Amino acid sequence: MRAATIRDQEIVLEEHPDPIPGTGEVLVRVHAAGLNGGDMMQRRGLYPAPPGSPQDIPGMEFAGEVAMLGPGAERFPEGERVMGIVGGGAQAEFVVAHERVLMPVPESLDWPAAGGLPEVFTTAHDALFSQAQLRPGERLLVHGGAGGVGTAAIQLARATGASVTATVRNEALREQVSKLGASVIAPEGFAGHGPFDVILELVGAPNMPENMNALATGGRVTVIGVSAGVMAEVNLLALMGKRARIHGSTLRARPLEEKAITARLLEHEVLPLFDTGALRVPVAETFPLDQAAAAYEHFAAGGKLGKIVLTL
Amino acid sequence: MRAATIRDQEIVLEEHPDPIPGTGEVLVRVHAAGLNGGDMMQRRGLYPAPPGSPQDIPGMEFAGEVAMLGPGAERFPEGERVMGIVGGGAQAEFVVAHERVLMPVPESLDWPAAGGLPEVFTTAHDALFSQAQLRPGERLLVHGGAGGVGTAAIQLARATGASVTATVRNEALREQVSKLGASVIAPEGFAGHGPFDVILELVGAPNMPENMNALATGGRVTVIGVSAGVMAEVNLLALMGKRARIHGSTLRARPLEEKAITARLLEHEVLPLFDTGALRVPVAETFPLDQAAAAYEHFAAGGKLGKIVLTL
Repeated sequence: MRAATIRDQEIVLEEHPDPIPGTGEVLVRVHAAGLNGGDMMQRRGLYPAPPGSPQDIPGMEFAGEVAMLGPGAERFPEGERVMGIVGGGAQAEFVVAHERVLMPVPESLDWPAAGGLPEVFTTAHDALFSQAQLRPGERLLVHGGAGGVGTAAIQLARATGASVTATVRNEALREQVSKLGASVIAPEGFAGHGPFDVILELVGAPNMPENMNALATGGRVTVIGVSAGVMAEVNLLALMGKRARIHGSTLRARPLEEKAITARLLEHEVLPLFDTGALRVPVAETFPLDQAAAAYEHFAAGGKLGKIVLTL
Repeated sequence: MRAATIRDQEIVLEEHPDPIPGTGEVLVRVHAAGLNGGDMMQRRGLYPAPPGSPQDIPGMEFAGEVAMLGPGAERFPEGERVMGIVGGGAQAEFVVAHERVLMPVPESLDWPAAGGLPEVFTTAHDALFSQAQLRPGERLLVHGGAGGVGTAAIQLARATGASVTATVRNEALREQVSKLGASVIAPEGFAGHGPFDVILELVGAPNMPENMNALATGGRVTVIGVSAGVMAEVNLLALMGKRARIHGSTLRARPLEEKAITARLLEHEVLPLFDTGALRVPVAETFPLDQAAAAYEHFAAGGKLGKIVLTL
């Protein structure tokens, strides 16, 4: 099979052996595979795939058709439209995943939308609900509202009855983000728009001191992006006084059982909302697999709202 | 009534009007009232009592007899032995508390033990179980194991099947702390004894960088003491990579309903363990109320294991 392949911090197209589904696993013929921030880091050698995943084929999310069942796999018949997250290897003609981490593709979604859905909606849903336990009526602040996870988080929070404020650095994207249902502000002086019950931190350490000021009593900060900085200053007395908490998380390194739980939660709580129109996957641009290198350059350049997706 | 009273950062004994129990409240004739770190801060003007509590009478925990019932109060008859936490005012001959935050005194406990129980055991139980969700078999590190909350936390964690390591700076106290069931170490290089699933931080900010190294995947840090420093440096990438979280908390400022919940949890999960002998309240020394000033000096000097309790 052909696959996007990392060679000397560049993306090239190479031939690889087709993967073989093991017990409980499914071989999927990939139709679309989204790009994510993690792919950019992996290309630079900073974010290796977890053990058991292909090390040189990037790609953490995909949508496609079931091509072959491994021993004992029975959740989906051959030909079914499925999607999911994997530790790596999705930007290829075929990928293998355990059937427990696969989800059915909602009827209303085309391949590019489905291929750009799993990583950002799983990440956002896990961060907002499983970790920060966002509740209806609460006030959410999303730092980095124009990114993939940010746009997913805004929509999910609005669909659950929370009010959403989002910081967006790029002025040109603010109107588009506000159409997702957020009150959009510049990053400077965000605490003046608080207090917030939950803060989703997709930017990094520089926001943390002001995050503590912006939190309501009982507030939660979930950190899942640190591109602007890693070492944060935290006022522990403020953390105590507000009875607050700070979560950190990544999806990629989680074991099978935890990834399977996130897939079940998405099936039950999120996927039905695509068919009703309450949620959508903003797709900025698609590239065929053999232009993967150009897709990566496009992603790294930033400035677009929505997913960049490889199609096959 | 006579009460310990804060005047110009000193403790004196003064006459105050007897408090009157309101709806659902109980007047308690205090027999014992423990001292806590918060009292030391309040004496220095750094930790005012929350609104609704006496501002000049310190004391956040007590044990005594029900002396009078306010309208609608019905949980305890007059004369019953009760104990509990309040926002302030406990170091006095009488204190008023809502009946929902009172707990019965276990039969096996004398007045000094009962008067030194509520604050530290509620704080430790809340931090370990309600916040950090400590589970049987997990590995707990307690920073500051010789203090009141530290000794309570060690015993509670051992009773629930966790393994406990405790840092104790004062060499003279290490053997006594180890008898509570902890593996006792010096504070220097504690991460080498990890990893830990839960870290109870009773010392403060200087430990936080090494705490992140000492945490296991899925680990939790609960911060409830910052005497050694407030501004902490936190590596957010480590927090993400370990899928960890940091809690901060205080009991004192919580609303009635939250304090009542902690009282119910203690009644169900903790108090029975005093009568079985699995838990005990280490009492270092008792002082009669009219020697409250000396008791405060004694507490501030440190170096003792166990509670300092005023008796009446």
